[in-house]
Amino acid sequence: MLALDVGGTNMVAALFAEDGEDPVALASGPTPASRGPEAVVEAGAELLASVRSEGEDHGVEPRRIVGVGIGVPGAVDPARGIVFLAPNLRWRNVPVRDLFQRRLDLPVVVDNDANCAALGEWWAGAGRGSSLMVGVTLGTGIGGAIVRNGRVLRGVSGAAGEVGHVTVQMGGRLCSCGNRGCLEAYASGTAIAARARERVQEGSASSLTEMAESDPGRITAALVTRAAARGDALATEVIEEAAGYLGAGLAGLVNILNPDRIVLAGGVVQAGDLLLKPVRAEVRQRAFEVSSEACVIAVARQPELAGVRGAALTFRREVLEGHR
Amino acid sequence: MLALDVGGTNMVAALFAEDGEDPVALASGPTPASRGPEAVVEAGAELLASVRSEGEDHGVEPRRIVGVGIGVPGAVDPARGIVFLAPNLRWRNVPVRDLFQRRLDLPVVVDNDANCAALGEWWAGAGRGSSLMVGVTLGTGIGGAIVRNGRVLRGVSGAAGEVGHVTVQMGGRLCSCGNRGCLEAYASGTAIAARARERVQEGSASSLTEMAESDPGRITAALVTRAAARGDALATEVIEEAAGYLGAGLAGLVNILNPDRIVLAGGVVQAGDLLLKPVRAEVRQRAFEVSSEACVIAVARQPELAGVRGAALTFRREVLEGHR
Repeated sequence: MLALDVGGTNMVAALFAEDGEDPVALASGPTPASRGPEAVVEAGAELLASVRSEGEDHGVEPRRIVGVGIGVPGAVDPARGIVFLAPNLRWRNVPVRDLFQRRLDLPVVVDNDANCAALGEWWAGAGRGSSLMVGVTLGTGIGGAIVRNGRVLRGVSGAAGEVGHVTVQMGGRLCSCGNRGCLEAYASGTAIAARARERVQEGSASSLTEMAESDPGRITAALVTRAAARGDALATEVIEEAAGYLGAGLAGLVNILNPDRIVLAGGVVQAGDLLLKPVRAEVRQRAFEVSSEACVIAVARQPELAGVRGAALTFRREVLEGHR
Repeated sequence: MLALDVGGTNMVAALFAEDGEDPVALASGPTPASRGPEAVVEAGAELLASVRSEGEDHGVEPRRIVGVGIGVPGAVDPARGIVFLAPNLRWRNVPVRDLFQRRLDLPVVVDNDANCAALGEWWAGAGRGSSLMVGVTLGTGIGGAIVRNGRVLRGVSGAAGEVGHVTVQMGGRLCSCGNRGCLEAYASGTAIAARARERVQEGSASSLTEMAESDPGRITAALVTRAAARGDALATEVIEEAAGYLGAGLAGLVNILNPDRIVLAGGVVQAGDLLLKPVRAEVRQRAFEVSSEACVIAVARQPELAGVRGAALTFRREVLEGHR
């Protein structure tokens, strides 16, 4: 079957054999978000056509392709295949399933990208074998999904897993959601970049000034991570501060859910042990011992494949097995 | 069947007909916690004997009583019926199931009291009909349990539902768990009493001073609630401040789990709308709209019965139906 992971910037398409976890063919390209849903559907369809044709070269006949699973960064009604709201794509009430079905003449299943990514890591990544996993994506924002016995816990309106919007500091920093003190305002890539920029603009010495060519506006979380890896003190402090908040947020998840695995993904995990060590220490400090000992905090193994894997698995379950 | 809800101060025993949700007989008495587990078992057994004999007067024959469900305020291994740790009872590794089984000559099932109370409210209280409910008990501490389709979500070590120990204020007030900034340190009965005491000791004018006979040490959450109900400004402020933190904590739960019901229990809910209004407003403000609209925040309907109801239901499922 086919799978498409639609990101705010890039899309990944993949072809999977019936029950394979590794794609037979893979392709990626930019998401033309600014040109509207139809342009995104067209670009996605072209990517899917390319992996389909590559698959043919590998002996996967087109008639054996039974459908498409699609992950979209937004609030999705999986039953109707409608994306209510996808801020990064500037979509509102887009009938993604129907648009793709008409274009491809194949059954389509649509789900939220964080759900797909968590499910993909559960299936064939750092969540393998977990009976209760929380996937947390640290990127522009912070998203997440809870996977229990291989099924996404969706909540009553399909909106569960918004782990970035838990309050860790009442009256604290302003979050993209309009509230103050959310975890996302402290530990997302955006928050890390903003904090480093603030510190540099306040006049703190850092190699970031040079790396950003004296324009603090050019400081990104990736740049902060690189500077920290090279031993920059300010960058290290900024990462450690974010890790403290992230650890507190994850400790809350550990106390509420008592999972056996937390799988971290997204650009911010590039910081590696610089982030992970203080995160793990904070969780150990704050969570109940029995729960903290039961929970492994790991980094996503193949985040670049997790989204398409999860989308493919969602399609398989929903269409081929008749349930999700 | 019989049920016993062991509290830190009092115990409630009840007799239920096979599938009745209302007890046929009910009795309560003090928990002799200071005299050790054996004394508590003996006192519990006597209470159970009294409801059994009252049941006989109502036509429930002793031979129809098939077993006992017991709720205990601590960390429980339900499979072995052992209480690892119950701070309020000063218990550690107490084989509660075996002790009661020997004394009563009946099968016994033991579970955590917060799990039992949430299950009881789901079964026959404010959680009736909910497909995903969070029960939150606001007392000396803050405990909780998640009930999904009528089953307690226990987590991988049976420790899920510790909703009082999520960080709402990094570096904030010291919590009983040793960390700083937990919800429990802001919205438990203990926290409300401590905050009011602080304010009075700082010299703020309040009718609490007179109500506590000029001894701030005598200020309790119940007293603060009574003062607030009579219009005392300081008491009202203290309750509203606690409500703000509680709302932030619950908004986090709403964003993580997307439940259809949160059922609040414990002494603190005596404050009624004075607490509930600002709690609901804070949740509406902080949680995602779709999730906040899907979630009713209610007060436990029969908290005095919820514990024994849940204990009875747990016994029924585990022993009579062979699963929990």
